[in-house]
Amino acid sequence: MIARTDATGGPGLLPEILEFTSSLTLDRALLREDVVGSLAHLVMLARQGLLCAEDSRTLRAGLVALWEADSRGELHLPPEEDIHLAVEAALTTRVGEVAGRLHTARSRNDQVALDLRLHVREMIALVLGHLASLLELLAARAEAEQGTILPAYTHRQRAQPISLAFLLCAYGAMFTRDVDALRFVLSQVDVNPLGSGAIAGTSLPIDRELTRALLHFSAVNPNALDAVGDRDFVLDFQYAAARSLTHASRVAADFIDFASSEFGFVKLDGALACGSSMMPHKRNPDVFELIRARSARAVGNLMSHFQALKGLPSGYHRDLQEDRAGLLQTGPWWCSVLSALTTALPRVTFDRERCLAALHCDYTQATDLAETLVQRGVPFRVAHQAVGTLVHRCQEAGIPLARATPELAQGIHPDLDLAALGTLDPLACVRRKESAGGTGPRSVSLQIVALRKSAASAALTARGVPRLQTLFDELREAPLR
Amino acid sequence: MIARTDATGGPGLLPEILEFTSSLTLDRALLREDVVGSLAHLVMLARQGLLCAEDSRTLRAGLVALWEADSRGELHLPPEEDIHLAVEAALTTRVGEVAGRLHTARSRNDQVALDLRLHVREMIALVLGHLASLLELLAARAEAEQGTILPAYTHRQRAQPISLAFLLCAYGAMFTRDVDALRFVLSQVDVNPLGSGAIAGTSLPIDRELTRALLHFSAVNPNALDAVGDRDFVLDFQYAAARSLTHASRVAADFIDFASSEFGFVKLDGALACGSSMMPHKRNPDVFELIRARSARAVGNLMSHFQALKGLPSGYHRDLQEDRAGLLQTGPWWCSVLSALTTALPRVTFDRERCLAALHCDYTQATDLAETLVQRGVPFRVAHQAVGTLVHRCQEAGIPLARATPELAQGIHPDLDLAALGTLDPLACVRRKESAGGTGPRSVSLQIVALRKSAASAALTARGVPRLQTLFDELREAPLR
Amino acid sequence: MIARTDATGGPGLLPEILEFTSSLTLDRALLREDVVGSLAHLVMLARQGLLCAEDSRTLRAGLVALWEADSRGELHLPPEEDIHLAVEAALTTRVGEVAGRLHTARSRNDQVALDLRLHVREMIALVLGHLASLLELLAARAEAEQGTILPAYTHRQRAQPISLAFLLCAYGAMFTRDVDALRFVLSQVDVNPLGSGAIAGTSLPIDRELTRALLHFSAVNPNALDAVGDRDFVLDFQYAAARSLTHASRVAADFIDFASSEFGFVKLDGALACGSSMMPHKRNPDVFELIRARSARAVGNLMSHFQALKGLPSGYHRDLQEDRAGLLQTGPWWCSVLSALTTALPRVTFDRERCLAALHCDYTQATDLAETLVQRGVPFRVAHQAVGTLVHRCQEAGIPLARATPELAQGIHPDLDLAALGTLDPLACVRRKESAGGTGPRSVSLQIVALRKSAASAALTARGVPRLQTLFDELREAPLR
Amino acid sequence: MIARTDATGGPGLLPEILEFTSSLTLDRALLREDVVGSLAHLVMLARQGLLCAEDSRTLRAGLVALWEADSRGELHLPPEEDIHLAVEAALTTRVGEVAGRLHTARSRNDQVALDLRLHVREMIALVLGHLASLLELLAARAEAEQGTILPAYTHRQRAQPISLAFLLCAYGAMFTRDVDALRFVLSQVDVNPLGSGAIAGTSLPIDRELTRALLHFSAVNPNALDAVGDRDFVLDFQYAAARSLTHASRVAADFIDFASSEFGFVKLDGALACGSSMMPHKRNPDVFELIRARSARAVGNLMSHFQALKGLPSGYHRDLQEDRAGLLQTGPWWCSVLSALTTALPRVTFDRERCLAALHCDYTQATDLAETLVQRGVPFRVAHQAVGTLVHRCQEAGIPLARATPELAQGIHPDLDLAALGTLDPLACVRRKESAGGTGPRSVSLQIVALRKSAASAALTARGVPRLQTLFDELREAPLR
Repeated sequence: MIARTDATGGPGLLPEILEFTSSLTLDRALLREDVVGSLAHLVMLARQGLLCAEDSRTLRAGLVALWEADSRGELHLPPEEDIHLAVEAALTTRVGEVAGRLHTARSRNDQVALDLRLHVREMIALVLGHLASLLELLAARAEAEQGTILPAYTHRQRAQPISLAFLLCAYGAMFTRDVDALRFVLSQVDVNPLGSGAIAGTSLPIDRELTRALLHFSAVNPNALDAVGDRDFVLDFQYAAARSLTHASRVAADFIDFASSEFGFVKLDGALACGSSMMPHKRNPDVFELIRARSARAVGNLMSHFQALKGLPSGYHRDLQEDRAGLLQTGPWWCSVLSALTTALPRVTFDRERCLAALHCDYTQATDLAETLVQRGVPFRVAHQAVGTLVHRCQEAGIPLARATPELAQGIHPDLDLAALGTLDPLACVRRKESAGGTGPRSVSLQIVALRKSAASAALTARGVPRLQTLFDELREAPLR
Repeated sequence: MIARTDATGGPGLLPEILEFTSSLTLDRALLREDVVGSLAHLVMLARQGLLCAEDSRTLRAGLVALWEADSRGELHLPPEEDIHLAVEAALTTRVGEVAGRLHTARSRNDQVALDLRLHVREMIALVLGHLASLLELLAARAEAEQGTILPAYTHRQRAQPISLAFLLCAYGAMFTRDVDALRFVLSQVDVNPLGSGAIAGTSLPIDRELTRALLHFSAVNPNALDAVGDRDFVLDFQYAAARSLTHASRVAADFIDFASSEFGFVKLDGALACGSSMMPHKRNPDVFELIRARSARAVGNLMSHFQALKGLPSGYHRDLQEDRAGLLQTGPWWCSVLSALTTALPRVTFDRERCLAALHCDYTQATDLAETLVQRGVPFRVAHQAVGTLVHRCQEAGIPLARATPELAQGIHPDLDLAALGTLDPLACVRRKESAGGTGPRSVSLQIVALRKSAASAALTARGVPRLQTLFDELREAPLR
Repeated sequence: MIARTDATGGPGLLPEILEFTSSLTLDRALLREDVVGSLAHLVMLARQGLLCAEDSRTLRAGLVALWEADSRGELHLPPEEDIHLAVEAALTTRVGEVAGRLHTARSRNDQVALDLRLHVREMIALVLGHLASLLELLAARAEAEQGTILPAYTHRQRAQPISLAFLLCAYGAMFTRDVDALRFVLSQVDVNPLGSGAIAGTSLPIDRELTRALLHFSAVNPNALDAVGDRDFVLDFQYAAARSLTHASRVAADFIDFASSEFGFVKLDGALACGSSMMPHKRNPDVFELIRARSARAVGNLMSHFQALKGLPSGYHRDLQEDRAGLLQTGPWWCSVLSALTTALPRVTFDRERCLAALHCDYTQATDLAETLVQRGVPFRVAHQAVGTLVHRCQEAGIPLARATPELAQGIHPDLDLAALGTLDPLACVRRKESAGGTGPRSVSLQIVALRKSAASAALTARGVPRLQTLFDELREAPLR
Repeated sequence: MIARTDATGGPGLLPEILEFTSSLTLDRALLREDVVGSLAHLVMLARQGLLCAEDSRTLRAGLVALWEADSRGELHLPPEEDIHLAVEAALTTRVGEVAGRLHTARSRNDQVALDLRLHVREMIALVLGHLASLLELLAARAEAEQGTILPAYTHRQRAQPISLAFLLCAYGAMFTRDVDALRFVLSQVDVNPLGSGAIAGTSLPIDRELTRALLHFSAVNPNALDAVGDRDFVLDFQYAAARSLTHASRVAADFIDFASSEFGFVKLDGALACGSSMMPHKRNPDVFELIRARSARAVGNLMSHFQALKGLPSGYHRDLQEDRAGLLQTGPWWCSVLSALTTALPRVTFDRERCLAALHCDYTQATDLAETLVQRGVPFRVAHQAVGTLVHRCQEAGIPLARATPELAQGIHPDLDLAALGTLDPLACVRRKESAGGTGPRSVSLQIVALRKSAASAALTARGVPRLQTLFDELREAPLR
């Protein structure tokens, strides 16, 4: 049964109401954030003379002990309404009534805003790390697959010959944008709400600049009322996750198709393929299906959070507590999907012959042929139409474009001569597309270099994010005056 | 570490991939559904001669033992990919290799479709029970509050005098529609998917009509491919929940306003009101704020499920597994909100004097006055304009409408005489609105009767839903030939 | 510039504010609904003696003239805040000040609730008509495609042989559930809100039962406050649309795959296939891509509506106006997608040889072989494993399952003999699956019969829905006393 | 009837299918973007020698004429499948077959990606302008309202005394974050997709760096396949809109409450308040209700776009066309809401006496009193409890906290003496909260300065965004070699 305190309600508060309103099962996951935030608050109170030296030392020792017990998996928190009260109760058990001084000039409203920001910041570091690995992996694989040629698809129809390296670079371009988005989230989360009090600041002589520095934030939230009611950074993180997982879902959709018997472009090795309880022959790409599906919950969590905020007046409302379930779920999930991709991709082998065969038996070089005419001065629309007619004739004759003869072709347009038809080798088509961002090998080599740079830059940003463990290590030693 | 089997993938399947794809932590909650479904399947196999008598008895004893161990909280399932394999593994431990016969003519695809349907049906019964209690409570309270008069609001402006009974009946009308929606969900879920196999049915001589009857479904799903890929019933349930919790959110929004110092219409007793960690004077309506917020996750879960289904081809895909997290969360939540409302409402007291005062000092009888003129033959638009002018004059004079004098009024329109002004008592205004659905006492009495009928009917429907325990009790005794 | 009236705000109301708040550009589409509702209200006022005979005749003639001008495309409404005021202003122009009597005992709050219900009811009839056509089409096509055999897919891997007829019946099963959902919406929308007034009913002696009968509703909304604030029926319609368009999206996803060169199962004829501005050889399935995509806006509109309702107190708020944009868009869209499907499907030809070839060269009969062993008494798990091994051996040998020899097979399990291997013909596999809902021909024939019944029943329901034109024809002649 | 061309489909394409797939009614709004993009492409083709001088001049003159006709409202586009083909057809009418040369080295896939990016960039400039005005307005009003004192609310309960200036600065803090978000969107949209071709680049010697410079983009999209399938910038814009409109909805929720009779804090003047068609006394805050509601469609559009992208493989699919409806709607809407806020706020007057009275009659100074004790060395939890008891005693005695006597107080805690109680004046409470971000006047003055800086910075960013008109003016004069 959850404890009833002055802070949660009077002694008559119904147990079932307290249980309905309690968030402890969710925000138990924020224990480390709560301890770090309390340590910073404590150091500030001490230096400002709002706590005496002895109390400060006692309180810090208590908080450090809680963190360490938690690290050993030995911390059992009392059943309180939320993590803040649970930590205070646990601290009281250890150090006595002096624990009551820690809440000086602090409200649970600014405290939870801080905990959530610390949590999001921590998750950003983790996700950036996964993105860096994935980008590096894509770059390395692209390098190895410059010679694998397959069709690019539009409308799920074969469109033009490309290299697999080029396709992998396209994936890399998507995930590079996720790094951008995370940097935006980081800029939004990087603001210290501590010291906002319940809603209006405090009359006590606190120093918010000091807690900002102790917690390695770049700025102090400019307005207390906004600070306690603001969950934009949670939205931002959920949005970045939903966007990134949508990227992952598109990659997964490719691999599910590629792994079908019809495409037959890839083989999943036994480390990846899943079976069937009824059909003994099945080797299913479940891992990619689940990657595809995981974007669903991220989008749902984003929707859920918008829904929770809608219609609220400004300031703090208990409704904001609903931020937690989705937020705490999204980070680990995001990591798990990126990690699954990183695990799975090296275990997927492309069947180079089947990939190439898909080009040889088709008409994907048509645009190249039209461009050859354009280079001879034929207007594009005329060239487009002439090649379209040639494709049609070939289809009627049951031959692929590569086997079109000058006889067949020149009847359509005089420029469709032997030299022009000589450009139809798929590999040559790939090689010619050296426009910036194109599938040509020099263009792709530049893309790979750029991907590597993105990977390194993401890793660097990740390492620059202040981590909870580091903050803890600093704060347990920080001078108290 | 999760076990690897032929059904999940070969022995080389990576542990981290298996962990990524496993759903056991979620669908562990479906143990009872899985056992009941297996019992029905087993009885059918036995009667069709696909299992011999001895094997049937052995298997049934094993399944019954699993259920009973679970009821005692003593069932520890082995770490398998999902609940179906975990149950099969646990069964194998108890009864040996004969457990392998249970999967005859069954796939996990139709098995999970069945488990989810049984789960939704069970949840519908629980939610209907809560709705019945809430409707009954609203009816009883409405009866007691016929004499409490307060303003109805449009645009959050005082609009017209109503009785509190009338407002409570409006809440009842919303929740009555939830009963309708649940009946629709029930009609959609009430279809037996068992026997669909993996996707195309089976060549074995099964009897789907028999499992239908054993599981108390009304119909058999007409097409196996549809049956294993269909999650409409999950969408339907999530939708009904989102709609119902939106109703609850609107009721909660009323009470949050009513509980403010500004409205001052209600007092939350100490059993309900929550406190503040920083502001000693606060008595906050957290329970209503959280009821308001809880619709957010239901809407998010609905969005999530649409997102998961979008873009899937027909038939079964592993993506469908993502139905589980939201679904398993939504039912208990829905119950918790309805239950919190039912707990909270009796502990809310209305301050009748403040409610009435809000009417006396305002202009909410204006429409009634206009209608009085209409009854004397004045066109409505003319009456509307005349009363509008009178309101304006009163506002200028700083008096409420009830204190308008014939002198002031008749200068505006001759029919605004003493008799007309005599109709301005708020209570009389309430009493006159006896149009069907109006706030007049006879009309409201009829509404209360209707609410009671809805409550009784919801309870009846709830009792008619076949429950898991009943099915289990029947199936453990069902003849095996 | 939009007119300013007493009803919209005083003469000082800023034009830009009026424009911001006006809904006329949206609800202009509700003109016919508004006129029909006004006619019913008018007949009731006349019969209740709230309008004299002459005024009633004048008003009715005016309203009839508006409808007829609109039917000829000649009605130009004045720029008012909304459709209700625009109709009243247009009526005033035609019949003079007596138009002001029509708003007696009516508010725009109940008026718009009525218009929206009439609109949804009209759209339901249209959508049901489209569904009936689609279901009939699927049934007819299924009949013609009993002999087309292709793989069913799970996880986008070939799973088991089925007939195309069976697949089409699966589509039919999905759309049949849409008919169910529409019947639910119909039951929810079928309630008369007229006479609820602004929020509390009226003191005038109206007869809501009469307007109910005139408008062919089944019931009167029980509570006025609920009636004006209730948009559940809009949610219900949006939900049914989102669900149905998700079905269409799954069908479309199948055809996009089938139309790829890799599957090659279908050919889109020139009436369907779209081209490319750059790639002359392309024949793209744009129509199916857009059908797949259209579910997106329906889901977005549903989410939008939930978002608009969230956090509102009970009763009427101007926020509810936001229902219109999505609602008015969803109905025509839904019709357009169903119509596009109905147009497209007959123009898609299946390549029977390629479909069959996909089976011959693969292992999709594995389950059937396992079931053959089960019929000889082998436990399913043992059979599953034996056949799995056989599949593996065939794959190593580079032969499809159909060419497995008894020598290869019996080394694995003695029951894998010549007779057992004789069951591997894909067509025979289809024929054997005669379990209810299976792909066997007798089972499918029953499914086709059921589809036909659903189509007929949907058409019947559609015809039973009271239509605006019928209501208008009745109301223009309805006795005025 | 929509024209059928090689690019859209063969001559046999069904008119109803073409109508179903056409996007012209939507993307007609992108005419200016399309012309500007074509001008840049043309200049590049000319300089690269892919167009001769004469053709270049002819084409440019034609495009300029189209823009100018459109500016005069005289451009009637032929009914083609989309804006690109309509422009090409209109151009052909004017300049003949040479128009067919413009599509050289270009696909509609990269063309539409460019148009959409130009559109989003244009909208960002407009929205930033509105945000700058709103921020400036909030700063100015805050300056004027430093002396207006009212309660801050948490849980919709009076919490602490604040100045209105402080509340307005909180609004400003929210909208400042919108400027941040728009800068992020700007960084994401600021990439040139032109020259990506259909999916793989081109073999023609184009210069993407040149079109980048001509169109004032900062970078070239690194990968063509990604470029044509990427709609992240549309998501980003929709997300920023949904977030910002959620801010507006929270501000609106405040004003709807403040305008109620119960709060009575604000008066809407006649330029803002809306009336009722039935209730003559109503003066409704419709403008704020609609601002509150408008976030709904933005969130719906965001969800719709996620739904459209989900499940798509990489690259271009026709599904992407569904981006348009939501995107084209969101920008103007966002502007309209910000503009409505900017119009409305100056017309709202605060009733300073009622605001202050709400503080005098309540207990909102409780935290301040507790903090006074803390400054004397009382532990916070003890102080919190003592003041809580005092509040309780005052409530029992029916007096506000400001009238607590030392006799009453000192019985509870010795430090609750006359001096302590002397701190209870609400204005003094405001003045004391000079912590950074607090409601104290010096703190608020700094916040106002910061708001002004944000406003100026937003305006500066807005002015730095390259606008369509400027690009047009530059491109019509740009050298062709």
